[in-house]
Amino acid sequence: MSQGDDAGGLAAQPPSIDADRLLDRLRQLGQVGRDAEGRLCRLAASDADKAGRDRLADWIVSAGLELAIDRVGNMFGIWRPAQAPDATPDEAPVMIGSHIDTVIDAGIYDGCYGVLTGLEVAQALQSSGFTPACPIVVAAFTNEEGVRYAPDMMGSLVYAGGLAIDEALATLGTDGTALGAELARIGYAGSEEPGFLRPRAYLELHVEQGPVLERDAVPIGAVENLQGISWQRITIQGVANHAGTTPMSMRQDAGQAAARVVTFLRDRIAGPTTVATVGCMSFEPNAINVIPSRATFTVDLRDPDEHRLRQAEAALARYLDELARSEGVTVSAERLARFAPVSFDKAIVGLVEDAAQRLGLRSRRMTSGAGHDAQMLARICPAAMIFVPSAGGISHNPREHTERSDLLAGADVLLDVVRRLAGATFPPPSCHRAGGFQP
Amino acid sequence: MSQGDDAGGLAAQPPSIDADRLLDRLRQLGQVGRDAEGRLCRLAASDADKAGRDRLADWIVSAGLELAIDRVGNMFGIWRPAQAPDATPDEAPVMIGSHIDTVIDAGIYDGCYGVLTGLEVAQALQSSGFTPACPIVVAAFTNEEGVRYAPDMMGSLVYAGGLAIDEALATLGTDGTALGAELARIGYAGSEEPGFLRPRAYLELHVEQGPVLERDAVPIGAVENLQGISWQRITIQGVANHAGTTPMSMRQDAGQAAARVVTFLRDRIAGPTTVATVGCMSFEPNAINVIPSRATFTVDLRDPDEHRLRQAEAALARYLDELARSEGVTVSAERLARFAPVSFDKAIVGLVEDAAQRLGLRSRRMTSGAGHDAQMLARICPAAMIFVPSAGGISHNPREHTERSDLLAGADVLLDVVRRLAGATFPPPSCHRAGGFQP
Repeated sequence: MSQGDDAGGLAAQPPSIDADRLLDRLRQLGQVGRDAEGRLCRLAASDADKAGRDRLADWIVSAGLELAIDRVGNMFGIWRPAQAPDATPDEAPVMIGSHIDTVIDAGIYDGCYGVLTGLEVAQALQSSGFTPACPIVVAAFTNEEGVRYAPDMMGSLVYAGGLAIDEALATLGTDGTALGAELARIGYAGSEEPGFLRPRAYLELHVEQGPVLERDAVPIGAVENLQGISWQRITIQGVANHAGTTPMSMRQDAGQAAARVVTFLRDRIAGPTTVATVGCMSFEPNAINVIPSRATFTVDLRDPDEHRLRQAEAALARYLDELARSEGVTVSAERLARFAPVSFDKAIVGLVEDAAQRLGLRSRRMTSGAGHDAQMLARICPAAMIFVPSAGGISHNPREHTERSDLLAGADVLLDVVRRLAGATFPPPSCHRAGGFQP
Repeated sequence: MSQGDDAGGLAAQPPSIDADRLLDRLRQLGQVGRDAEGRLCRLAASDADKAGRDRLADWIVSAGLELAIDRVGNMFGIWRPAQAPDATPDEAPVMIGSHIDTVIDAGIYDGCYGVLTGLEVAQALQSSGFTPACPIVVAAFTNEEGVRYAPDMMGSLVYAGGLAIDEALATLGTDGTALGAELARIGYAGSEEPGFLRPRAYLELHVEQGPVLERDAVPIGAVENLQGISWQRITIQGVANHAGTTPMSMRQDAGQAAARVVTFLRDRIAGPTTVATVGCMSFEPNAINVIPSRATFTVDLRDPDEHRLRQAEAALARYLDELARSEGVTVSAERLARFAPVSFDKAIVGLVEDAAQRLGLRSRRMTSGAGHDAQMLARICPAAMIFVPSAGGISHNPREHTERSDLLAGADVLLDVVRRLAGATFPPPSCHRAGGFQP
């Protein structure tokens, strides 16, 4: 085992990303799974997903990596270095992952950028003669998007032990199919048990899907945590009545009450770290001259701090109680989803910042507002993410775009961090205990 | 012509309503036009409407009144008294009217109560030996509800000269039919020109369709005016973005802006006389984790005073401008309907109050929040309305209900007012000029 100080195992020649190969693969994969209207749509375990997986499998194998597939369809390209005779075998790999399934009418970067750059990093290290101190694994997790099968981030959730494999395989999709049957049909029901490789560290490179890096003209986001998410559906029941003949003082207007919740969320709940969104709204009977009897809407609350997220939920619940009294309506709230915030590993986040600095790239610590496979892997190992700018903050849309220079800057940072993680004995045991293993 | 002071032509025996006949006819007509699910549905010029009209025509003829139908299908039962040899012929009738078409899944009182009580009043006066100084006419106007053909109050609008007859007959319905063809098909395309009888006074008895009389335990509403109505559809265009990754400060949230309009209308626009309602609301893309790119909603503003209604419209327009700047959205407003307020004839309103007092019934002056045929007739003659309580304020609903005692109290007041209007020379010319003829 080669021993540098913080970057042991450095090769004779510095490794470098093959920019053209990376960008070409991104473009190629982005053409796989186009529907009749030309929309990119590789829903999990579909024929289009199979076509994308087949392409990735070819690239993994042609790069000399060992292809492994687990029972929930997660794909792995494993580089097992020959151990030096005097070295202690360390099978815990550095894992670089993301996903290649997409939403409907997707862009080409979400997920794919992380997987394909992970593969490129492995190939760059190989080409440079680098000898890693542990395996390096490139992972593509099944069904991150959750469009066809719920929940999202399912493959990594199963991998981290948060969902039983049999339950995952039995999940019925929007089209009535079972995930397990579809994985078998497309030939990606593997034999490895999920979790068969327990990483020493997990890295995920991803487009930001938000506007912050572009706004601040910062090419590298060192993602230090991931917001907790609270989703609720609120139903307000009032009384339908004539818009002309009912005095304002005698109304029990469900729409009015709903509007007050929307403005309350913005004015009183949202804050420096808390974001609040009402995305869905409907009125009944939805007639121009009838006071709404019912309003149904969703509330999406997010905060990287669990205590603050709970405070936001509690403040909303109190406000709904007040509203029921003041507006003469009845209010019910149904929890749709709840994920606790995730803190990423401080040491790895520090390596991301160091790498950016060495490469002359500005970076900023930031929070991920979206969910990612990294939040599942953080349950079982030290993990962190690297973000690159998304033009206009746009994602889940064919207009999703990241500049070539930003794509390559992110690849360079990932390469540097992986080289250090796989070169040194990282993380030290104390760091591992502090940063990993969340329930 | 018989000459009393304020109630000339009084008969030897006081006239009285045949309560059982009136309530039986209300029940009978309420059974005509039930659909397969038992819902009352007599849309204008439908087969069900024909069945209701046939029933009304039978009752008009059997009461000894002359049946007349105009080109837009308005039905009239005319009582032309024999003129005394020394009297000046006065052909301008006292008209009592409303409508018998219904909404879908209607109650049995809306409109029908006014028409059938008008018929009952004529019969009560006849039976008592009363000799009117002018014709008394019971009218049922076509398509008051406007469900199948727009606009509502169409028959009375045409009758008052506010819509050309040919335009009305060419109106296409929600089912693609033309009103004129459908009236001909059901046998109610008459030959009289709309407006052929110019009333000296118009009275409309109606259920309140609002909660005020019931709340205040007042059986008689002396309706002194009718709210002006302003309907707009507002569209707010923002930018769809990720609910998790978009900082609050960078949002252009169309739903948030729409909610602010809803609360602004309640908090800043609605007042002692102005009512404001947002009945329809929709968000796009309407996804839980996407900031709404578009919100579309309706605004229903009403006020009995035109100046205040215009002030409310102007305040809303100013607020929409501010909102466009403060929220970074674009706002467009489309006018859907606009009716100026209508003031009813003070002398007739006074007669309604006097009648209630004589009958030992509490009354209150009030504003009609809903549109009625009386607002169209007020363009061409002195007009007013009498309201009776609606249980729970409910209307346009099978639960629409008015207590028997209230129905009969309204009938008694109508009888008293008609007796005075048709007995004396009413209105004096000065009053007629002051109260009638609105452009």
